[in-house]
Amino acid sequence: MQQVTQQVMQPTADGQRYQLFSPTAMPAACSFLWNPQLLLQLNCRGFATAQFMQPEPAKYAHAPVLEAKTFMQPEQPYFAHHPGRFVYFKDEQNGSIFSLPYEPARQQAEQFCFSVGKSDVQWQVQQAGLALNWQVSVSPDAPHELWQLTVQNTGAQLREISIYPYFPVGYMSWMNQSGDFDAELNAVVCQSVTPYQKYPDFYKQQFFKDQTFLLAEQPPIAWCANQSLFEGEGGLQKPDALLGATLANQPAHYQTPVCAMQYRLILAPGESRVFRFVFGPAYDKCEIAAVRQRYFGDSAAQAASNTDGFTAAQQQAAARLNELNPCLQINTPDETLNNFVNHWLPRQQFYHGDSNRFTTDPQTRNYLQDHMGMCYLKPASFREALRKALSQQHASGEMPDGILLHHDATLKYINQVPHTDQCVWLPVCLSAYLAETDDYALLDELLPFSNEASTQTVFEHLKRAMTWLVLKKDPRGLNYIEQGDWCDPMNMVGFQGRGVSGWLSLASAYALNCFAEICQQRDLPELATHYQQQAAQFNLAVNSQLWDGNWYGRGITDDGRVFGVSAETEGRIYLNPQSWAMLSGAADASKIPLLLNAIQQHLQTPYGVQMLAPAYTRMVQDIGRLTQKFPGSAENGSVYNHAVAFYLYALYQIGEPDLACTLLKQMLPSDDVAEQKQRGQLPVFIPNYYRGAYQTLPGTAGRSSQLFNTGTVAWVYRALVEGMFGVKGCADGLRVEPQLPSQWPAASIVRLFRGARFDIQFRREEGIAAPQLWLDRALLPDFMIRDFHAGQSYQVTLLLPLVSRS
Amino acid sequence: MQQVTQQVMQPTADGQRYQLFSPTAMPAACSFLWNPQLLLQLNCRGFATAQFMQPEPAKYAHAPVLEAKTFMQPEQPYFAHHPGRFVYFKDEQNGSIFSLPYEPARQQAEQFCFSVGKSDVQWQVQQAGLALNWQVSVSPDAPHELWQLTVQNTGAQLREISIYPYFPVGYMSWMNQSGDFDAELNAVVCQSVTPYQKYPDFYKQQFFKDQTFLLAEQPPIAWCANQSLFEGEGGLQKPDALLGATLANQPAHYQTPVCAMQYRLILAPGESRVFRFVFGPAYDKCEIAAVRQRYFGDSAAQAASNTDGFTAAQQQAAARLNELNPCLQINTPDETLNNFVNHWLPRQQFYHGDSNRFTTDPQTRNYLQDHMGMCYLKPASFREALRKALSQQHASGEMPDGILLHHDATLKYINQVPHTDQCVWLPVCLSAYLAETDDYALLDELLPFSNEASTQTVFEHLKRAMTWLVLKKDPRGLNYIEQGDWCDPMNMVGFQGRGVSGWLSLASAYALNCFAEICQQRDLPELATHYQQQAAQFNLAVNSQLWDGNWYGRGITDDGRVFGVSAETEGRIYLNPQSWAMLSGAADASKIPLLLNAIQQHLQTPYGVQMLAPAYTRMVQDIGRLTQKFPGSAENGSVYNHAVAFYLYALYQIGEPDLACTLLKQMLPSDDVAEQKQRGQLPVFIPNYYRGAYQTLPGTAGRSSQLFNTGTVAWVYRALVEGMFGVKGCADGLRVEPQLPSQWPAASIVRLFRGARFDIQFRREEGIAAPQLWLDRALLPDFMIRDFHAGQSYQVTLLLPLVSRS
Repeated sequence: MQQVTQQVMQPTADGQRYQLFSPTAMPAACSFLWNPQLLLQLNCRGFATAQFMQPEPAKYAHAPVLEAKTFMQPEQPYFAHHPGRFVYFKDEQNGSIFSLPYEPARQQAEQFCFSVGKSDVQWQVQQAGLALNWQVSVSPDAPHELWQLTVQNTGAQLREISIYPYFPVGYMSWMNQSGDFDAELNAVVCQSVTPYQKYPDFYKQQFFKDQTFLLAEQPPIAWCANQSLFEGEGGLQKPDALLGATLANQPAHYQTPVCAMQYRLILAPGESRVFRFVFGPAYDKCEIAAVRQRYFGDSAAQAASNTDGFTAAQQQAAARLNELNPCLQINTPDETLNNFVNHWLPRQQFYHGDSNRFTTDPQTRNYLQDHMGMCYLKPASFREALRKALSQQHASGEMPDGILLHHDATLKYINQVPHTDQCVWLPVCLSAYLAETDDYALLDELLPFSNEASTQTVFEHLKRAMTWLVLKKDPRGLNYIEQGDWCDPMNMVGFQGRGVSGWLSLASAYALNCFAEICQQRDLPELATHYQQQAAQFNLAVNSQLWDGNWYGRGITDDGRVFGVSAETEGRIYLNPQSWAMLSGAADASKIPLLLNAIQQHLQTPYGVQMLAPAYTRMVQDIGRLTQKFPGSAENGSVYNHAVAFYLYALYQIGEPDLACTLLKQMLPSDDVAEQKQRGQLPVFIPNYYRGAYQTLPGTAGRSSQLFNTGTVAWVYRALVEGMFGVKGCADGLRVEPQLPSQWPAASIVRLFRGARFDIQFRREEGIAAPQLWLDRALLPDFMIRDFHAGQSYQVTLLLPLVSRS
Repeated sequence: MQQVTQQVMQPTADGQRYQLFSPTAMPAACSFLWNPQLLLQLNCRGFATAQFMQPEPAKYAHAPVLEAKTFMQPEQPYFAHHPGRFVYFKDEQNGSIFSLPYEPARQQAEQFCFSVGKSDVQWQVQQAGLALNWQVSVSPDAPHELWQLTVQNTGAQLREISIYPYFPVGYMSWMNQSGDFDAELNAVVCQSVTPYQKYPDFYKQQFFKDQTFLLAEQPPIAWCANQSLFEGEGGLQKPDALLGATLANQPAHYQTPVCAMQYRLILAPGESRVFRFVFGPAYDKCEIAAVRQRYFGDSAAQAASNTDGFTAAQQQAAARLNELNPCLQINTPDETLNNFVNHWLPRQQFYHGDSNRFTTDPQTRNYLQDHMGMCYLKPASFREALRKALSQQHASGEMPDGILLHHDATLKYINQVPHTDQCVWLPVCLSAYLAETDDYALLDELLPFSNEASTQTVFEHLKRAMTWLVLKKDPRGLNYIEQGDWCDPMNMVGFQGRGVSGWLSLASAYALNCFAEICQQRDLPELATHYQQQAAQFNLAVNSQLWDGNWYGRGITDDGRVFGVSAETEGRIYLNPQSWAMLSGAADASKIPLLLNAIQQHLQTPYGVQMLAPAYTRMVQDIGRLTQKFPGSAENGSVYNHAVAFYLYALYQIGEPDLACTLLKQMLPSDDVAEQKQRGQLPVFIPNYYRGAYQTLPGTAGRSSQLFNTGTVAWVYRALVEGMFGVKGCADGLRVEPQLPSQWPAASIVRLFRGARFDIQFRREEGIAAPQLWLDRALLPDFMIRDFHAGQSYQVTLLLPLVSRS
């Protein structure tokens, strides 16, 4: 077991796991596991938030209260009876109790390690003379949690202990809920009926997995399925049920159920025991019996493979992650960055592309950007996603607000509000795919529209999308915003039909330029020129209408008020228009330094760049819901990493590698322990935001939202590939033009590209005036690797001149 | 302070309060306080569930989780972080802590009394040498809780203590929530924005009272508005914040807020101190300032009246209840019954009529029956309710499923499902009003229809309702049920348009007979005969289609399956058809003993009569949602008191006073402590149900739902007036024909009737063969008191023969 150090957290030596050594230093720090059916967020104290799909997100362990079913929330608050996965321990010789991993009993352990792996989470705890390992994986394919407890007696005396796995199930339903032990299944089974009032819902819900089970490999000596009887007056910190010699085998009958069992064991010095459990939802007991057979059965197949079903599932779950083939492996002087980019960033990209954020109607912009991230792991996934999205495009070119993934899916919540940016993401994301794959054949594939069965090419679909963007301009040449663009809560700028978005106009320009490049590649120079002209018109309109002297305004309201400008006291400057003016070409060389300076002055914090500042403190009725969010949270001026990632990508476009690298590193905790605690999260994912309002609310600035759903990661990876390491594909091959930070003397990467492998060394050398690209000991005439073959490996060296520090 | 006794609970000697002496004996036992703006349910441990109207129900203290907003639920589960109103105490000399009233610290007190009054709740606790009184009233008119703490040093030593009022506010909103102390207001103010996504909701919500405040009379020495910082690792049982000398004055910035303050005091032996607080929602700080001025201001008016605003509000709140004028005061050999009927039953009736169950669209049947209960307290309230309901009637005669009480109200939830019984309640409830008031002039008043501005008389409105009932018959002569009748979750019997309700057909018969009587009183004998004939046809149809040999079936499904009959294994017998066959006259003298016997055999439990038996254990798709509810809960075979009350009323109709009295007493806890604990509630209201499934789930049978919304109470009071004490009004005057239980030798009542007061003695006397009614020493020729005058008092004696026990 890892020695406890002064460190709050650190990766393991092989980088495969990340470890947190205290349940109290950053109490909300969490990790997440998933398969396409199940999402399981675990925090370091043992609290858990899980959802599975049927087809909409559903719960099998609930709060002891009727919860509103919403999308996942940032800064999820935990509370004493929050769902979690716990084990109580009782020393049968002296009656003392504690619990794993920390909640609910909250006894401080001698050693504690919350160790986050890619396909599992472990708590490694030394307490009361026991070495304990509490581990969970999720099944590779089913909504099943696989829990494994290892208990070892590390003392010199015989130990007699009881262990009680304790899985709260919560308030399942006001219509019907109960819990009982089924001896044949060896499981506590909690049954319920999802509440409803209108009979057509019965037919929608009748096959819901309304049962929650905790299935044990070994029969317990006793059990309890009744939360309040388990807890009694002792409370969760010292439940009454543990006072008796055995649990009282109590069912729950329309009371809050719980899954608790008891094992009693005697451990000789050094002896250890393993207990395994499966927890999850099921339709009925037949299904639970099949679960038992799968994981703990003794089928011939399992005997033949010499692996039991539980272990096999753990291995398959690990394989799903290990078989990821990210196109980049890096080795730089920055170990934190190496660890994150090699181990965690592609995992987070894969999570997005694999799960679509556990919704059946992902927002179109999320769906396209999430799958853009898949271009670097498994490009076919982007291809399929683009086809699916375009098949739901209206023949006018307009894209729907959400993409339906399931035949029962409907557009819900935010997707019922009209946003105007969806078409932008088509060429923007497609260009990443084409750079990676050169798969221009995709453009010729035929797809229908949502309102027309007859098919058109992908290329034609994109043309119509571009036409739609150009059409949706006002007389000033700016895009209408309706009830929001990328920023969904900016919902009242243009709901009367006149307000426009500066950001969107720039994004349209960038999208048109991206599409022009695609036309160029297809040998359609006139069309390319046409789209470039359209882009230029957008840029012109923004420069004439929204340039505020030092930065670009964010938009113009229905009543003609320009906002996001220096005349205001709140929301004076927004990040996105500046970043996208760099991408679109709107900002010329005279404006870029002004923009960078304005961002530095108004938006920069030690935790990254705020999305706007100053944060709004009161409703602005011609901007909308955004201004009602808490200052410094979410879109209202947090360090909203998705926007930061756009800026990061833009900085590489304008050639600012040092600034870009600083920005990238601010997306993760630094080595400073105080700063780690302030952010409060592990560097195993980039959260959707860190709190902003740095000037006015410094106490919370930098705090992580702990929300791992974010469009950030695809753009960060794209910035690494195209920017920092400069290994972007093009029609001719692989271009090598890195923008390493000046302080790095050297770095190396492995770049997988169109089936070939490139081991690339970057090295700054004295005595050279310009970069030199060497391929297998031959100096190349430019920075393109043209001649390579799938299946082959290549040694590449790029020598760089020393940086002159001015 | 009341001496702790072996009793779990008892009323005070004057009957004005009810007391529970343990926080653990019946942990969910609760009371409720309300004004038209605020409903506050308090349980004995300090947990609280509150809602106020704006105009829909809203919360100002939340669970620390996003709660689904539903109607109030039975058997509300509590949990560690449940909203509540607490005070922590710290002994500054030895550091020990405990909390009032019991949660969250859960230290057992030396003496504990949860003392429930009509307009306040008090916890009287002796702990650690202190006598403590923690008291709450609600403002007479605003959504404000008025809290008062009295601390007395009962020891011989000087005491130095800190007290910390601790009011959790919970997870207010994912959009915006915060908490801070405002020194000018002397209040912790928690701000939030009710979440929404669509801009039209902004206009609906912009004036919501999204702030929650705890306003103190006296300035605290320190405060905390941040729940998790207050609690720290010590947890709610021993919060970290109490370890320091003072609270740390910490705000909440998009974190879970809390209202906590600290006072430090030194108490000489015998010395006491009082602290007062106001807790509630507000729109903004201006409103909170006005609240401060109202309760703690020093206006000339307050000075003149010699009462401060806080005390005045407490007194006005008490006056609202004390000024109730129930038409019955009883004095019987049964003290429990006396206490309940004289103090609590009319309070519960008033709650229903005053608040309409805190909804803006009460179900029509509830609205009419709840106001039927008001006939005995304030008949004008029924009059207004009937007029409002009839103004929303369709010109066809059909009544809507809910009555809209507010211009912004809409039909929600269950009121969007078509039920077919709403017309029944019009004549049934009206006849109670007419008996009480003789106000036949009401029938001539003119009212519009929902779809016709031109007006018709109330009488015509009722005629159309009767016509509608008669029209909605199938070829067998039974009423269609569509998606439910009185039993709303019986939603799939007739959703295809063919299924019929046996109960509803009987209820139509009874309603038609009631209306026939009204026609008779109006001198319309032909019309009366017409409606009697219609009633007889319903009775005939039920007798021919649904008589099962020993009882009546409940209905016939869309596919022609008769259910609620002996051929089945679950849901063999339902209570309602039997009760209403007695009311409607369908059951003749040969059938009534069979019905009574079947009820006794299949439905009777020690806690009352189950609504059906055996409870369903699986979905029956041609009955519906009812069968999916947990067995023995709610409509699925609980002792559903509303149905029991129909049976009670029917028993008096058929002259079964002893059986009726037994049934009535089963609605309340008995004197047996074990039985009290099993029910788990105080006899200060009748709950909507006690658990049934007595045969199969005896462990939970009898447990109270703790839900005080129920149509029961109006019928119980009506049964007392018309049945047990037999003092029903009629056109000629007051008829005195009691049905006292045979074991009572005597009883007396005060009957307020049409402005006169009757002090009535009932006495069984040897030597008389028939009852004798004496009015002011004159023997009357029959049992009618005809000659009396409003404003006068009358002494009445009714002598009854001894009961011959057979």
